[in-house]
Amino acid sequence: MSDVVSVLGGTGALGRALALRLARSGRTVVLGSRDGARAEATAGELREVLAGRGAEGQVDGASNVEAAAAGEIVLLATPWDESGASIAALAPALAGRLVVSCINPLGFDARGPHGLPVAEGSAAEQVAGLLPDSTVTAAFHHLSAPSLAKLDKDLSGEDVLVCGDDAAARTRIVELAAEVTGRPGVDVGALRQARVLEPFTAVLIAVNRRYKTRAGVLLTHVDLTRG
Amino acid sequence: MSDVVSVLGGTGALGRALALRLARSGRTVVLGSRDGARAEATAGELREVLAGRGAEGQVDGASNVEAAAAGEIVLLATPWDESGASIAALAPALAGRLVVSCINPLGFDARGPHGLPVAEGSAAEQVAGLLPDSTVTAAFHHLSAPSLAKLDKDLSGEDVLVCGDDAAARTRIVELAAEVTGRPGVDVGALRQARVLEPFTAVLIAVNRRYKTRAGVLLTHVDLTRG
Repeated sequence: MSDVVSVLGGTGALGRALALRLARSGRTVVLGSRDGARAEATAGELREVLAGRGAEGQVDGASNVEAAAAGEIVLLATPWDESGASIAALAPALAGRLVVSCINPLGFDARGPHGLPVAEGSAAEQVAGLLPDSTVTAAFHHLSAPSLAKLDKDLSGEDVLVCGDDAAARTRIVELAAEVTGRPGVDVGALRQARVLEPFTAVLIAVNRRYKTRAGVLLTHVDLTRG
Repeated sequence: MSDVVSVLGGTGALGRALALRLARSGRTVVLGSRDGARAEATAGELREVLAGRGAEGQVDGASNVEAAAAGEIVLLATPWDESGASIAALAPALAGRLVVSCINPLGFDARGPHGLPVAEGSAAEQVAGLLPDSTVTAAFHHLSAPSLAKLDKDLSGEDVLVCGDDAAARTRIVELAAEVTGRPGVDVGALRQARVLEPFTAVLIAVNRRYKTRAGVLLTHVDLTRG
């Protein structure tokens, strides 16, 4: 468990919650933001939360570029950017990294939440096109940030669905998921599955609104040791 | 529980398994097929399965047109038809009916199973466009036909996700789901959510292949009595 994990968009709700859970599991986490000072302030807040829990992990803050360069695994918890400019600018820093897109391109209108059309098929495929020198996977779309942020909340009954075109990379993220939820991720195959995983978040949000909850997803009858 | 439920495409694996479960729950089911004689033969097989179980329901076979006209609720368990011609031909018979699309437009190639592009967004939206005088919902995409066909298999741990633009119709199908699985369906909102529900079946099939299973989907932390 020696790889440094960076979380870009680390001052957002999902990013900071993922960083918190990973550090709690003993990871060294570098939290990135466009504003490095803001990332450092958030990292300080997370260190306070972790203090007294005896967590061995560590959280530091940096600019997105510095954080990208610092991590062997880099989670993109950044907002959807149709232009792709914010990701493209990080391509040199992300070269050689295992990148995990957590990006959900979602819209909301009178009929409720829905997936936005993406020219490349999905945000993850857009990212892969912009980062030809990185290995790109997608995961962590469906976890509720408020639930993640509550460290005492047991999330081992929820699945993290992992996709990507590199089988070894998928396996590493399947294992990383266990540090977040206590349960290994589920390998769902090719990166284009992100076309389903991303807008499935809109289904969960619709359910959250109707049933006043924070729903997660569990695939039943799956023996994760058989993957 | 007096409404007759018709199942078009009722000689296929999903159709016959849904018909079997509904009849076991006491429904009168009319199984439709392009070939009415074949539908009647399948209905006879299902009656044999149900005999001795003391099921109060009843299964009859008919042509798709006759079955469409016979049901208050009509499940479309038919194969995906990009042209829409097979559904369009049934429009007069389906007028005034509550139609449930179970159609999954899926493809398979070297990278595995995937959702096919649909001009209307989803098969369910195509159906709605072709049936202006019917009320269209979509559901039952994710249940495994072989699991359904085993009447002793407990499926009450799996969710049936139901979408549609008519709230009252969604509620009727949420209730119908309980007759199939023992658990009410989950109302996930507008019909366009079918754009996610349909290709999510490709995610489940990819998982089935990798983990050698028949996966289902469960939304966690949802109190179905609050819908």
